[in-house]
Amino acid sequence: MAEEKIVVVGGVAAGMSAASQAKRRNPRSRVLVFEKGEFISYGACGMPYNIGDPTRAMEDLLVLSPKVAREKRGIELLTGHEAVALDIESKSLQIRNLEDARVFQESYDKLILATGARPTVLDLPGFDLPGVSVLRNFNEGKRVKAAVAHSKPGKAVIVGAGYIAMEMAHVLSELGFEVTILKRKRSIIPGWHPETIARVEAELTAHGVQVHSHISLERAEAGENGRVARVITQQGVFEADLVLVAAGVHPNVGLAVSGGLRIGETGAIWVDQQQQTSVPGVWAAGDCAEAYHRVLRRNQWIPLGTTANKQGRIAGANAVGAGLRFHGIVGTTGFKVFDLEVVRSGISVEPAKAEGFEPVSVTIQQSSRAHGYPGGNPVQVSLIADAPTGILLGGELVGRNSAAMRINIIATALASHLSVEDLQNLDLVYSPPLAPVWDPVLVAANQLIKKVGRKN
Amino acid sequence: MAEEKIVVVGGVAAGMSAASQAKRRNPRSRVLVFEKGEFISYGACGMPYNIGDPTRAMEDLLVLSPKVAREKRGIELLTGHEAVALDIESKSLQIRNLEDARVFQESYDKLILATGARPTVLDLPGFDLPGVSVLRNFNEGKRVKAAVAHSKPGKAVIVGAGYIAMEMAHVLSELGFEVTILKRKRSIIPGWHPETIARVEAELTAHGVQVHSHISLERAEAGENGRVARVITQQGVFEADLVLVAAGVHPNVGLAVSGGLRIGETGAIWVDQQQQTSVPGVWAAGDCAEAYHRVLRRNQWIPLGTTANKQGRIAGANAVGAGLRFHGIVGTTGFKVFDLEVVRSGISVEPAKAEGFEPVSVTIQQSSRAHGYPGGNPVQVSLIADAPTGILLGGELVGRNSAAMRINIIATALASHLSVEDLQNLDLVYSPPLAPVWDPVLVAANQLIKKVGRKN
Repeated sequence: MAEEKIVVVGGVAAGMSAASQAKRRNPRSRVLVFEKGEFISYGACGMPYNIGDPTRAMEDLLVLSPKVAREKRGIELLTGHEAVALDIESKSLQIRNLEDARVFQESYDKLILATGARPTVLDLPGFDLPGVSVLRNFNEGKRVKAAVAHSKPGKAVIVGAGYIAMEMAHVLSELGFEVTILKRKRSIIPGWHPETIARVEAELTAHGVQVHSHISLERAEAGENGRVARVITQQGVFEADLVLVAAGVHPNVGLAVSGGLRIGETGAIWVDQQQQTSVPGVWAAGDCAEAYHRVLRRNQWIPLGTTANKQGRIAGANAVGAGLRFHGIVGTTGFKVFDLEVVRSGISVEPAKAEGFEPVSVTIQQSSRAHGYPGGNPVQVSLIADAPTGILLGGELVGRNSAAMRINIIATALASHLSVEDLQNLDLVYSPPLAPVWDPVLVAANQLIKKVGRKN
Repeated sequence: MAEEKIVVVGGVAAGMSAASQAKRRNPRSRVLVFEKGEFISYGACGMPYNIGDPTRAMEDLLVLSPKVAREKRGIELLTGHEAVALDIESKSLQIRNLEDARVFQESYDKLILATGARPTVLDLPGFDLPGVSVLRNFNEGKRVKAAVAHSKPGKAVIVGAGYIAMEMAHVLSELGFEVTILKRKRSIIPGWHPETIARVEAELTAHGVQVHSHISLERAEAGENGRVARVITQQGVFEADLVLVAAGVHPNVGLAVSGGLRIGETGAIWVDQQQQTSVPGVWAAGDCAEAYHRVLRRNQWIPLGTTANKQGRIAGANAVGAGLRFHGIVGTTGFKVFDLEVVRSGISVEPAKAEGFEPVSVTIQQSSRAHGYPGGNPVQVSLIADAPTGILLGGELVGRNSAAMRINIIATALASHLSVEDLQNLDLVYSPPLAPVWDPVLVAANQLIKKVGRKN
């Protein structure tokens, strides 16, 4: 194969997967990675749990060191370097060395963009005070962990009500913080089934987490020590020794825009199923890029570490000519809050209606183990299908002790466009210590079949 | 619908499912169930665990009482009645009342056979002594539990090395018995991957269970109290206060044979995918019947409670004209031995070769949770595929704390005839407390893909 120069922008999940894959498949290629930050290839999703454990160093989350990337994998790696502009005509990037602010030009034969996503920052007074943070990159993780050590046990305010908010509410509570969640919208984890939301709210309440809805933030104020002390809202004042802003993320598309690459309707970089962008020879992968959604049969933007790793490998392989295809996502996501596992796959009722489906759904509760076998615990299963065709559209599970891992049955079923009748007929494992004779997923399917236009 | 008379022979899992389904779908039909034993609709698979818990009554395992079956479901139920002959010309059965040995004739419009399976009994001297038992029906369960209470803590010999043997070794050990497993063959759980067998053997050994291979039994002998005291073999004498024979089961096909119904190559009653036997108007379901195997694409015999329940419902529905189809099994089975979960789905290497496939396989070990997240434990995943086509043929998992429940991913994949590449591309759930970014099943698929004729 040719001795091509492959440049990768971004060195976390997708970027390092792409770089490693390209170099492995074509060892004669030059593979250069430019990473803005100091660290590469870390498990960002593990940061909340690392913050929760004072005995562990944040560095535990580093999967691959720059030294190993360079010496073992033969990747040319420049950390502290940000790609600031892309010119697709001359096939070159403007790179800024963040240490000395010097900008230089770097050419490429093939380019892979893995620029990731950034958290939404609140443009309100005081939200830049010490003790206020977002949690996305490695240094932010370290900053939050230091703030926790400084303020513990104290009062923590979390702005937002998504996965990170749930995970950090759990972690901070267990560290002894009094936790308050402030959210603009009516509900936590918006877009989930009402039954799922109810279970999560009950879990938060049971652990003393306060949840306030319909909050309009005004500003944050400092105390005498110069650190954040309270959050002022139109609905009242909330004391806070620590403020975490977890109000969503958006894809980093500035570099792609500078190169004239097509941005999809989702706001992320448009890609085909080979992870190629609108410009031949340029691929994108991970949180900056869209992903083909197998239920919707078009691109979506759901930033996740699993997708980043898979897309990165495919982009890296295709940059050296492999011609691999990303089969797509089905929207599988999940989190744990206290002991509760909360997971989903596919699409939910409102998006299904918007898509032109005629969704019907059921929610059931069933023990995770056989009748009469001790130690089972209730699993809640929600399933949704298209009424006229009976095709499964999605599902949500809430459980404990890994019982909710059954979501992978639904994820696998969605990948094959199975119907509710197909689901009902799956040959799932049965043994009293493992599962009941009718697994909770099958019980839900047996209920849902009654609502679809089928004879069963 | 017509006021037909539907007769069901057998009132445990398949039989009561069939009877309930037929009556529910056509309330005007007469539904009669003849059950040889005293009890109906019990969770036979739960018996080992019930035996293990002296605080529970065996009656905890009864799912449906005769009273409820009769009064709530409107089923005419005769326990203690055995069907001894079938005449398909006159559409009638010879029924023996086991209380007074009186035989009478019963006609039917539609017939469902759910006669179950029986354990292999050893035709050797002394294997009818008090303290020697098999474990299949409810009364045998009660007998074993009484023997346990009588002999505990003592020495237990288990003859056989299948699921029941593993489960009972676990249960009896925890009750304080010194447990010895005697098996004719070389290996426990024959037919499983060597790596799986090694893990199970290690688990038995770690818990002090002795396992002896290549044993030829000669007889059992009584002690002074008239109960079993030792098992004599060509390889030595084993003291035993309790002997459990768990040497396999065979389908009860006597009644079907008396009626001239086709018996399949497996020795069980042949059925089509509507659960109809070779005689129109006669269906069979559960442990007495074959089941369509979706990987082999022909009938197999794998007696299991899940299959019995599904087939029973379909037979019952079809007896009142529903025309439902049993989608088939994929060979998903499993058991727990001490803390180890041991599960499989699909077919293994030797049967795959016999079937004309060209099987390739891998076995990997991977943590059940994300890098750096505490509390993960290694899961062992074996996958097998057909090399030329890349089609997945089967898998086995060994794990703890529900980690092996991932077998349902493989069961679902097999139902859709997915390839290894399809498996590798599944969008499985990721969150550090739940699973690593590359789930162990995906890690195995990533390895196996290298052995199949694919470009990935």
